[in-house]
Amino acid sequence: MATSEPRATGGDQDPNSANLRPPSGTYEYAWMHGCTRKLGMKICGFLQKNNSLDEKGRLAGQKNLLSCDNSDRDVRFRHTETDFSNLFARDLLPAKNGEEPTIQFLLEVVDILTNYVKKTFDRSTKVLDFHHPHQLLEGMEGFNLELSDQPESLEQILVDCRDTLKYGVRTGHPRFFNQLSSGLDIIGLAGEWLTSTANTNMFTYEIAPVFVLMEQLTLKKMREMIGWPGGEGDGLFSPGGAISNMYSVMIARYKYFPEVKTKGMSAAPRLVLFTSEHVRDPTYLIKSILWRVIPADLEAKIIDAKQKGYMPLFVNATAGSTVYGAFDPINEIADICEKYNLWLHVDGAWGGGLLMSRQHRHKLSGVERANSVTWNPHKMMGVPLQCSAILVREKGILAGCNSMCAGYLFQPDKQYDVTYDTGDKAIQCGRHVDIFKFWLMWKAKVRWREINWYFLSFILCDVNKKRPRCVLIHCVYFCVQPQHTNVCFWYIPPSLRGMPDGDERREKLHRVAPKIKAMMMESGTTMVGYQPQGTKVNFFRMVVSNSAATQSDIDFLIDEIERLGHDL
Amino acid sequence: MATSEPRATGGDQDPNSANLRPPSGTYEYAWMHGCTRKLGMKICGFLQKNNSLDEKGRLAGQKNLLSCDNSDRDVRFRHTETDFSNLFARDLLPAKNGEEPTIQFLLEVVDILTNYVKKTFDRSTKVLDFHHPHQLLEGMEGFNLELSDQPESLEQILVDCRDTLKYGVRTGHPRFFNQLSSGLDIIGLAGEWLTSTANTNMFTYEIAPVFVLMEQLTLKKMREMIGWPGGEGDGLFSPGGAISNMYSVMIARYKYFPEVKTKGMSAAPRLVLFTSEHVRDPTYLIKSILWRVIPADLEAKIIDAKQKGYMPLFVNATAGSTVYGAFDPINEIADICEKYNLWLHVDGAWGGGLLMSRQHRHKLSGVERANSVTWNPHKMMGVPLQCSAILVREKGILAGCNSMCAGYLFQPDKQYDVTYDTGDKAIQCGRHVDIFKFWLMWKAKVRWREINWYFLSFILCDVNKKRPRCVLIHCVYFCVQPQHTNVCFWYIPPSLRGMPDGDERREKLHRVAPKIKAMMMESGTTMVGYQPQGTKVNFFRMVVSNSAATQSDIDFLIDEIERLGHDL
Repeated sequence: MATSEPRATGGDQDPNSANLRPPSGTYEYAWMHGCTRKLGMKICGFLQKNNSLDEKGRLAGQKNLLSCDNSDRDVRFRHTETDFSNLFARDLLPAKNGEEPTIQFLLEVVDILTNYVKKTFDRSTKVLDFHHPHQLLEGMEGFNLELSDQPESLEQILVDCRDTLKYGVRTGHPRFFNQLSSGLDIIGLAGEWLTSTANTNMFTYEIAPVFVLMEQLTLKKMREMIGWPGGEGDGLFSPGGAISNMYSVMIARYKYFPEVKTKGMSAAPRLVLFTSEHVRDPTYLIKSILWRVIPADLEAKIIDAKQKGYMPLFVNATAGSTVYGAFDPINEIADICEKYNLWLHVDGAWGGGLLMSRQHRHKLSGVERANSVTWNPHKMMGVPLQCSAILVREKGILAGCNSMCAGYLFQPDKQYDVTYDTGDKAIQCGRHVDIFKFWLMWKAKVRWREINWYFLSFILCDVNKKRPRCVLIHCVYFCVQPQHTNVCFWYIPPSLRGMPDGDERREKLHRVAPKIKAMMMESGTTMVGYQPQGTKVNFFRMVVSNSAATQSDIDFLIDEIERLGHDL
Repeated sequence: MATSEPRATGGDQDPNSANLRPPSGTYEYAWMHGCTRKLGMKICGFLQKNNSLDEKGRLAGQKNLLSCDNSDRDVRFRHTETDFSNLFARDLLPAKNGEEPTIQFLLEVVDILTNYVKKTFDRSTKVLDFHHPHQLLEGMEGFNLELSDQPESLEQILVDCRDTLKYGVRTGHPRFFNQLSSGLDIIGLAGEWLTSTANTNMFTYEIAPVFVLMEQLTLKKMREMIGWPGGEGDGLFSPGGAISNMYSVMIARYKYFPEVKTKGMSAAPRLVLFTSEHVRDPTYLIKSILWRVIPADLEAKIIDAKQKGYMPLFVNATAGSTVYGAFDPINEIADICEKYNLWLHVDGAWGGGLLMSRQHRHKLSGVERANSVTWNPHKMMGVPLQCSAILVREKGILAGCNSMCAGYLFQPDKQYDVTYDTGDKAIQCGRHVDIFKFWLMWKAKVRWREINWYFLSFILCDVNKKRPRCVLIHCVYFCVQPQHTNVCFWYIPPSLRGMPDGDERREKLHRVAPKIKAMMMESGTTMVGYQPQGTKVNFFRMVVSNSAATQSDIDFLIDEIERLGHDL
């Protein structure tokens, strides 16, 4: 391994002038005061030329050169016509003279993105421009997904950005009803742009002081909303609901069998988990009625497990199930958990947001009795993906369960209060900053447009009940309203109306939703999910979590289903 | 639950005009053609007024209104002075007339961010402005982290954004050497901004067609670089190295004991994992020399485990350890794994990036014999956090291990080739799009500035060897160069130079690095990590992964350590 002579690299500078900036006079900037704090707008120009302070004084001295506080003074860059065809990534910062191309490139990207944002909310724009995988792989009008061996120009990179959005799906479109997470929140978006720019890691206070404190304060607020006294307890933001739920299982196991941490699973008896038959995990499945678990069946299963020599450990109560939006009866489940000394977890990934609502939080009654709660603001609350919290009632148990006491990662002899370091509580080392967008949205909104969502799903129920063409599953089976913003229904084409129930009708009806969905995606007008479940053949699952959706969009969806499915 | 009369909400529209945009003439836009694809710059104005096409024709008809291809035409929005003090989140899209405030708000945020980017690369800017947790919690000059019950104005939201950056850490600063992931890559940043704007989920091809294909193609390229024939195999991007490594353990367990998936851990014997003593996990720890595991010790431990009735399952070979940047001898470990039929995982979270380098990939010789590999582009390759891949040699095993065959999540009867849906391979439902920034950087760069990193760490070694004030751990112990860009050293203040080795000197030296680090953070000039390890007292671990760093920055770090530590 050669230790060659120092060579100047692309981004290198003369070491002797390392603390000086080259004169910026060659750039065309409009130096302006972009801050609106109290003072209002004003212009504040300065030059950094001839900054030749000695080394020790250079940082303290900087303020002397500035006629206003450095932190408040933002430059408003002028977006100029730039030829990107001869510019490459290597011409951007940290390259010498890279500042101007960098700013112009970023402003060009922002043009693309703001145009996309504008069109996303424009109902004359398609939700998607569908192509099959093989079509996109073959290349669409010059959009080549393959990675070549030659670097592309910035012009091509910008084209790639445009094409990536063009062939994608507008999940923020008012007529996108396909997923539990939808919508494009502008405050959340701004928060994500800032988060990417800060590009740090929730690992320690040292490298993410502000974000770590925001997470701590926000988790405390969430715990207060759960109803744990004084908002005490613990928690973390994790990459998603599945991982938050995994944390809950790990903590429960640690609570009852801490030696599993060092000795492995052989240190515990055969542990058993219980959850609703409407949930994904293959554990002990509890029967349900109205899609809510039946507490008596839970107790019977616990007794059965014990009789077989297993060790019941953990009960999951779902607050907002994926398909039907059902809420398990938490208080009744908590009674059983107390009786048998089991860990109670509430999976509120989807429904947790209702804790923010005075009107609807009763659906999670008893949640304060849970040992842990999963709550995904990226679902019901419209926070950009990813944003999921695991909240724990017992303080310290997250660290107890997950800490490895790795001195090379967490130093106890740092100058600040290291209890603020979060890394030793997490199963991750690098942990993305998911808190800022949520914190910012909370600051900006507080009450989260909650009424709108419910209003919309009730409208849909009305629509469905009035029309013979759609059959609402809740009404067919139990004559009840949906518990959440999930509305599940069959579209019945004229050819099936009046046909007696039986295998033939079931088989035909099973094929209706996939056919309509395929045509819907081809035409790109709207998107809604479908699935079979249990004995029920394919049905549509409409979900309203997008704050851009209005009654007219729901009418549009029903009309579009009818337009596409009428002749099936 | 009342099904009240439809009420107009903030974002509602007249249902009868749902497919039309209100005339946009009230906004002051500069409509311009922002696309540079081949054609160069040109201006292309149009008005959407009187767009009263009938419903069926409205989407197809749209193109007739446009004088150039819709996908290419970007509006360049004019950034105007806006008073945000009376604007709130509710005034932004999807609110009626929300477009103009939305664009102006986003452009104002971009001003803040571009200013931050510019300063990040400016060596006259501090790396951080340190405050203790209690200081930030008490509120700094009006920066209030607490969540109130009243929504803030957009003016205050913008101030919050500025303050969040002001009190944070500039991880892209040329003098930030604190973490394995550092640097602020402009292409990667643009990629993240686009990803946030697209705000979708890697779950299915249906909602992320372009990103799913990008992931597939990029993973194939990575497998080709590993050396698996034809790039065949499987993989996923996960939220980080720890979770990628967890995938590898789960797959290995599934490979040898598939019944664990349905019957739990009691279906397997006592499984044992093996890894270097320099790695975090408390499994069977293998002794090392030069921080690389000793294959003979691995074999001895395997035999020992078998004799105790355990079932050896999995060996982890580290390619780039966190502290010393050591590479385990993969080929020798692979021989042992073949002999004993064990799963071989290579944890290349840190060092995997060297597979891109003709000059340095030999350090991972034998990686093609691994069953699975972790590789984090967010570390060595400077991709913004989070970006980690788990790569698997055997095709189909990821799905075999993780699929739940949940018909309500993945429908086999969709119109496209559903083998492109990735959700059933993952342990997550909502999976953040981590691929786009990496794909875009690959397109833009290809060779990743690899030479620069090595050049810098060798310079540092030279610096250290020449100067009695610093002692390079590698040289003290083994007279070798570091294997990677990690450089570990003690700073020896004059008071300790010449003092004989012993408890007193060790205790004093142990306190040197924390003291210097504390002063360094207070002065905000640079950041570098330190830790003790094994019998070694606190030492600095310098890591070069930031492409903005130059020789002058490394000189600056050493000088700064001396300036701060000289009188200790």
